[in-house]
Amino acid sequence: MKRLYSIFIFLLVYSTNFAQYVEYVNPFIGSSNFGTTNPGALLPRGMVSVTPFNVSGSDINSFDKDSRWWSTPYSSDNTYLTGFSHVNLSGVGCPDLGVIILMPTTGPVKADPKEYGSIMGEQNAKPGYYQTQLKKYNIKAEVSATQRTGISRYTFPKGKSNILLNLGLGLTNETGASLRIVNNQEIEGSRMTGSFCYNDGSERLVYFVARFNKPASEFGAWKKMPEMQAEAAWSKTSGKYKYYKNFMQTMNGRDIGTYFTFNTEANETIIVEVGVSYVSIENARLNLEAESNHFDFEKTKLEASEDWNQILSRIKVEGGTDDQKRIFYTALYHTQIHPNIINDVNGQYPAMESFEIKESKDCNRYTVFSLWDTYRNYHPLMALIYPNEQLDMVRSMIDMYKESGWLPKWELNSRETHVMEGDPAIPVIVDTYMRGLKDFDVETAYEAMYKSATTEGSKNKLRPDIDHYLSHGYVPLQEEFDNSVSHALEYYIADWNLAQFAKDLGKTNDYKKFLKQSQGYKSYFDKETGLLRPKLENGQFLKNFNPDEGENFAPSPGFHEGTAWQYAFCVPHDIKGLSKLMGGNKSFINKLQSVFDNNKFDMANEPDIHYPYLFNFVKGEEWRSQKAVRNLINTYYKNSPDGIPGNDDCGTLSAWLIYSMMGFYPVCPGNPDYALVSPVFDKITIQLDPNYYSGDKFEIVNHKANTTDYLIHKIMWNDRKYDSYFINHNTITKGGKLEFFLKK
Amino acid sequence: MKRLYSIFIFLLVYSTNFAQYVEYVNPFIGSSNFGTTNPGALLPRGMVSVTPFNVSGSDINSFDKDSRWWSTPYSSDNTYLTGFSHVNLSGVGCPDLGVIILMPTTGPVKADPKEYGSIMGEQNAKPGYYQTQLKKYNIKAEVSATQRTGISRYTFPKGKSNILLNLGLGLTNETGASLRIVNNQEIEGSRMTGSFCYNDGSERLVYFVARFNKPASEFGAWKKMPEMQAEAAWSKTSGKYKYYKNFMQTMNGRDIGTYFTFNTEANETIIVEVGVSYVSIENARLNLEAESNHFDFEKTKLEASEDWNQILSRIKVEGGTDDQKRIFYTALYHTQIHPNIINDVNGQYPAMESFEIKESKDCNRYTVFSLWDTYRNYHPLMALIYPNEQLDMVRSMIDMYKESGWLPKWELNSRETHVMEGDPAIPVIVDTYMRGLKDFDVETAYEAMYKSATTEGSKNKLRPDIDHYLSHGYVPLQEEFDNSVSHALEYYIADWNLAQFAKDLGKTNDYKKFLKQSQGYKSYFDKETGLLRPKLENGQFLKNFNPDEGENFAPSPGFHEGTAWQYAFCVPHDIKGLSKLMGGNKSFINKLQSVFDNNKFDMANEPDIHYPYLFNFVKGEEWRSQKAVRNLINTYYKNSPDGIPGNDDCGTLSAWLIYSMMGFYPVCPGNPDYALVSPVFDKITIQLDPNYYSGDKFEIVNHKANTTDYLIHKIMWNDRKYDSYFINHNTITKGGKLEFFLKK
Repeated sequence: MKRLYSIFIFLLVYSTNFAQYVEYVNPFIGSSNFGTTNPGALLPRGMVSVTPFNVSGSDINSFDKDSRWWSTPYSSDNTYLTGFSHVNLSGVGCPDLGVIILMPTTGPVKADPKEYGSIMGEQNAKPGYYQTQLKKYNIKAEVSATQRTGISRYTFPKGKSNILLNLGLGLTNETGASLRIVNNQEIEGSRMTGSFCYNDGSERLVYFVARFNKPASEFGAWKKMPEMQAEAAWSKTSGKYKYYKNFMQTMNGRDIGTYFTFNTEANETIIVEVGVSYVSIENARLNLEAESNHFDFEKTKLEASEDWNQILSRIKVEGGTDDQKRIFYTALYHTQIHPNIINDVNGQYPAMESFEIKESKDCNRYTVFSLWDTYRNYHPLMALIYPNEQLDMVRSMIDMYKESGWLPKWELNSRETHVMEGDPAIPVIVDTYMRGLKDFDVETAYEAMYKSATTEGSKNKLRPDIDHYLSHGYVPLQEEFDNSVSHALEYYIADWNLAQFAKDLGKTNDYKKFLKQSQGYKSYFDKETGLLRPKLENGQFLKNFNPDEGENFAPSPGFHEGTAWQYAFCVPHDIKGLSKLMGGNKSFINKLQSVFDNNKFDMANEPDIHYPYLFNFVKGEEWRSQKAVRNLINTYYKNSPDGIPGNDDCGTLSAWLIYSMMGFYPVCPGNPDYALVSPVFDKITIQLDPNYYSGDKFEIVNHKANTTDYLIHKIMWNDRKYDSYFINHNTITKGGKLEFFLKK
Repeated sequence: MKRLYSIFIFLLVYSTNFAQYVEYVNPFIGSSNFGTTNPGALLPRGMVSVTPFNVSGSDINSFDKDSRWWSTPYSSDNTYLTGFSHVNLSGVGCPDLGVIILMPTTGPVKADPKEYGSIMGEQNAKPGYYQTQLKKYNIKAEVSATQRTGISRYTFPKGKSNILLNLGLGLTNETGASLRIVNNQEIEGSRMTGSFCYNDGSERLVYFVARFNKPASEFGAWKKMPEMQAEAAWSKTSGKYKYYKNFMQTMNGRDIGTYFTFNTEANETIIVEVGVSYVSIENARLNLEAESNHFDFEKTKLEASEDWNQILSRIKVEGGTDDQKRIFYTALYHTQIHPNIINDVNGQYPAMESFEIKESKDCNRYTVFSLWDTYRNYHPLMALIYPNEQLDMVRSMIDMYKESGWLPKWELNSRETHVMEGDPAIPVIVDTYMRGLKDFDVETAYEAMYKSATTEGSKNKLRPDIDHYLSHGYVPLQEEFDNSVSHALEYYIADWNLAQFAKDLGKTNDYKKFLKQSQGYKSYFDKETGLLRPKLENGQFLKNFNPDEGENFAPSPGFHEGTAWQYAFCVPHDIKGLSKLMGGNKSFINKLQSVFDNNKFDMANEPDIHYPYLFNFVKGEEWRSQKAVRNLINTYYKNSPDGIPGNDDCGTLSAWLIYSMMGFYPVCPGNPDYALVSPVFDKITIQLDPNYYSGDKFEIVNHKANTTDYLIHKIMWNDRKYDSYFINHNTITKGGKLEFFLKK
C-alpha cells in the first residue's frame, strides 16, 4: 500500500504544481459572440496552432466563412468540421490564415469539403490539446503542438482510412498553393495567405512539411478542374475534382490537396506531424526535425501543458469563484497567443515588407501586431508580467522599421496590412520604456517615431493626413466616412508619447513641439454638445452632427468603429484638460456617468475601453469606477463560448479583464500610473521577473466581508495607508503588498 | 566596284549553298483545314517552338480552343493573337501543351487575354523564324529558337512597353502553374500539362527560365481571383485579375502570370530568351545558358536557318514546279518536328511513366510518338533519310520499356496517353531492324514485344483485349463502338512484324506462332460484302452492317476513325492472301478501284493511306497506282494553309507526300520493299548516311516529255532494265540510280 500512497501524493503535488493553472483555462471562451478566439492547440506565442476548422462546407453550420464578413476558423455555434488548420489568427476581426488543413476520413477518398466533412461529437480542449470525435467516420481526432509544429493523432476504425491535406480550403481569401509528395510518409508545400481585412497587398507564403508515422498504402494529389465549355463533352473531370494517383511532381493550383490512405486495424492510430515556416520548405523541415517528439503524441501534449502552466503561473489568484478563476486564466491564456514568433529554429524570418530573409539573434522575432488595439492595455500588461517577451516585441517592431522604413501599424507575417489608423507603435515603445524596460535600440526607435511624426503626407505610410494635422492642428473631415477625428485622436496620443520620450532623451525642443501638438484635440471640442465633433477644413464644425451615429460598427462621419460618445473621452493623456473643457469636474463626471447610464458605452471595442477608470481622476468619485468596472466584468465576461464581449483583438479585451479583476488599470499608455479599483479575488500574487524588476513579487490582498463587495474603504501599500487611487508601475515593480479594505 | 561585286558573288553562293532548301519551306502549309501544323519558329526536333497563339480570347477568330474539339495553338483562319507559346505540338489531333505564353503590349498592364490580345498584321515565316505585327500596339514581334530555348525580339514604339508571361492561358486542358520573379531581368517557373485527347493520367510539368536583355523598370505578378459570394462586397479583386507589384516569392495558382515593364524609345527592341526543361528549373537555366546566343537574335535566326538547310539538304529535288518543291520541302520540314528531343543539355530527362530523372548518354532521348500514325510510313522514311535519328528513336522506345515495363503507343513527354489502339511500337522497331539498322538492344526489344503479345488482358497495357484475340483469333464486338476490328487489325500487323523479327533472331517457334496469329484477319472476311466485317463473340457477323458508317470520323461499329471500306485492305502484310479471299486478282482490283471511283477513300487518315499503292501487287495493273497516287497528290496537297488533307499526324501525311512525290512507298512496315510509281520531279538525289549505308547516294531520274506525265513506260536500275514495280530498301541503300521512263 505504501507505494500506491506515494503515487497518490505525487499526483497531488503534481497537480498543484503543474496542472492547477491550465485546469482553469477554458479554450472555448470567446469562440462564439464574435470573440473570434478558438480552442485550437498551441504553445504560448507558437507559430503553429492546430485548430478545428468548422466554418465551411455545410448549411447545417450557423456561420459560413463565405456568407458574411467572417474572421475565425472556428465557431462554437457550428458542428460541421472540414479539418484542422495549422496557422491561424485568434481574436481578430478580419479573415486570414486558417490554412494547411488536415482531415481524417474513411472509405473512398473525397476531396470536396462538402462531401468529406463530418459532424463533430463531444469536444475537449486544454491548453496545448484539443480533441473531438468525427461522427460520420467514428474517428477520434486529437491534436497538440510545439512552437513550430502541429501533431495530430487520429484513432481510426478498421478499414480503409485516409488523411487528407487540403490546401484549397482556407480562411484567408488569398489562393494558390503548391505541394509535392516526397514519399509515402512525407509531403511538402506552400500556401499563399494575405488579403487581411479584404485588403490586397499583404501577401506571403507559408511553407510546410508533413510527416506520417506509417507509410501510406496509397497516395496521390487532387486538383479541382475548371468548368469547360464545349469541351466538357469529352472530359471526365471538367468542373470536378481530379485525382492524380502517385503523382510526385510539384502540384500547383488553386484548389489542390493530397490524400494518404492506410489500411487500419480497429482503433489503430496514425500520427501526423506538420512543421511550418514563413521562410522556406527547408526551414519547415528543420523546424519539424528540431521540435517534434518523433510522433510521441503524449510527450508533446504533456510538454505543451507544462509550458502553459509555467506561463500562467506568473500570476496566482486566490479566492473568487471557479468561474472567476476560469475567465481570469483563460484571459491570461488569450494574451499569450499573439504576437507570436515568426522566426524559425535557426533564427531566420522574412523581413518586413520584403521577400528577403533575415536572422534574429538572441531574441525572438514576433509577428501579428494589432497595435491600434493592443497599445492601450495589452503591452503595458506584457511589460509587467512578461517583460522579456515585451522587450522582444519592441525589438521586433524597431527591426521592422529598419527593414521597411516604417514602424508597424497592423503587422501580419512581416507585411503591413494598413488596418485601422494612427501611429500606435509609438505609445507601445514609449510605454515600455517608461516602465523601465529600456534595453532596446532607443536611438533608432526615436528616429522611427520622429519620421512618421514629421514626414509629409504623400510619403507618410502611417499618417497619410499629417499635412492637415500639422497645419490645422486637427484632421478635417473631407469625405463622409473618412474617420478624420479618430485619426487625429490617435496622432494626439502618439505625439504625447513621443513628447515624453523626447523629454527623457533630453530633446527639449521636440518635447515641447510634440506636447503642444498633443493638445490639438481641444479644437474638436464643441461647446454645444460638450463632445469632440468632426470639423471641416474651414474650421467649422460638421453640421447635422448625431453623436449616436456609429453604433455597432456602423459608419459614422469622423469616427472609426464608434460613436462620438465612444471617442469623447479618448484623450487619456489629458483627462484633466478634457475635464476643464467639459466645464469642470462635476460636468465631466456627469457626462461620463451618462455614458454608462444611457447605454452609450461599448465594451466590445477599444476607443472607450478606459472610460470606467476615468472617475478616478476626480477625488471622491472613485467609487463610480469601482462600480462601473465590476458591473462590466459581471455583465460581459463569462465562462462560456460567448464569454468575451466582442473580438478579443489579440488579447486586448482579455488584458482589460485581467487588469480589472486584479484591481488596477493603465489608463494612458506611456504613463506608468495605474488607476485602482477593487479586485475580484481575495489575493493576487504577481511574480516579477528578476532580470527586469528589483522586486520579487507584487501582492494584492483584498479584505472584504462578502464576495460581491466592491466599494473601497481603505487602501494600504506595504502596511501603510495609501491615499491615492493611482499607483505607479515603477513603484509596484520594486515589490510590495497592496491591500484593499472594502466596505461591507 | 570589285569589292561590291565579290560580295554579290558571295551572296549568290551563300544563297545556293545555304538558303536554297529553306526557301522552299512554307510553314503556313497545314495551318488551316485541320492540318494542325503551325508556323512557329523551331529547330529540327527542337524541344521548344515559339508559336503564335491565336485560338483564344476573341469572337473575331474563326476558331476558339474552348468552343469545340481543338488541337492546335494557331490557325491561319484566325487573326486575334494572345501571345507566343513555347512548347507546342504540331500536326496532332488532340489538345495539349501550348503553354508558357509571352506577349508584348503597351500602355497599362492587362492580364486578361480578352483585353490584351491584338489583331495580327502581315505574317512571315521561314524555318526557325516567324514574324508579325501587332496592330493594336504597333509592335513588331519576331521569334526564333534553339533546340531548348526560344528567343523573341519585340520592336516597341516610344512609351511604356510591357512583356507579359501568361501561365494561365494554354492549349492544354491541364491547369496549374508556379512562377518566381528572380530579379528585374529573370523569371522562373513551371506549368502543368497533360490530359491529351481529354484523357486524364498523362500529366507532367514543363519548367522554364525567361531572361530579358534589359532590366525592367517595373515588374510584378498577377493572379485571377475566384468570385466571392457575400464577401465580394468588401474585396476589390473578387473574380478579377489581381496584380502583385514587386512580388518575389513563388506565385502558385491556376491563372497566373507576370508583367515586366520597360520605358522604350521609338523602335527600341527588347529581347527575351526562354529556356525550357521537362526535368527542373535548374536544367531550364542550364539549357538557356548552354544554348542561347546571349540575346543575339540575328545569330540565332541564322543558325536556325542553317540547321534547317542542312537537314533539308539530305534530299535534293530537281525539276517540278516551284509549288511542287514547296509542298515537298515543307513536308520534309514537317517530318522534322516530332518526335522531338526531351533530354536537356546535360542528358537528363524524365523517365517514362515516372517522376524519376534519367540521363541519356551518347544519344538523344525522343518524345511525342504518335505511333498508330507514324509506324506506317514515317519511321521507314526516317530510317532511309535520317538513320541516326531513327535509331535514337528506337533506343528511346526501348528505354521507355525499361523504365515503365511497356513499349509506347502514343507517348507524350514520357507519359503514355493511351490514344488509338494496337501495338505500333513493334512494326516501328522491326521495320528499322529490317532496314539494316540494328544497333540497338535487340534482346530487350524482343522481350518487350513478346510481353505485350502474350500478357493476359487484365495486365496488358497495350492489348487490353488480347484474351479474346488469342482465344478466338479475332477481337469480338462487345460494345457498339468498341473499335474491335481496328484493334485486331493492328494486332495482326504487329504480330506479323514480331514473326519476322523472331525468324531473324532464330526463334522459329515464335515465328510460326505469331505468323499464324497474323493471318487471323481472314476470319473477319465476309463473303457477302467482300469486306472485313465486325464479328460477335459467338462467331456470327454483326447484323445491320453498313460499310459506309464511320465517314468523317463518325463512330462506327468495329472500326476506329474510318469505315469498313477504309479498313478493308488494311492487312499490308498479306495483300496476296487478301486478294485470294476477295476472289482473286480481278475481283481484288475491281474492289480496290471502286474505293477510289466511289469516293470511299479518305486521304485524311491513316488506315487506307497505303491503298493507292496496292494495285502494284497485280501485274499489269501498276498504272492504276501511278494514276491514283498522282491524283491524290494533285487533289489534296497544296502550297497554301489548307495544303494538308487533315491532321498531319506528326508527319505521317507529310511522309506519304514525300515518298509519293519521289515515286516509291513502303507499303508494309517490317517489309523493306517499296512499291514504285512515277516521281513528280525530274531528278531526286538522296544523300545516304555513310555511317549506316554502304552507298553514298540514291538517285532517281525521271525521263518524261510533259510535266503532267505519270504513266511508267520503263524502269532502269543502275543502267539495266528493271522488271519489278517494287524495290528493296537494302538494295537502294547500297547506292545507285533508278530511272523512270514515262509514256508520252
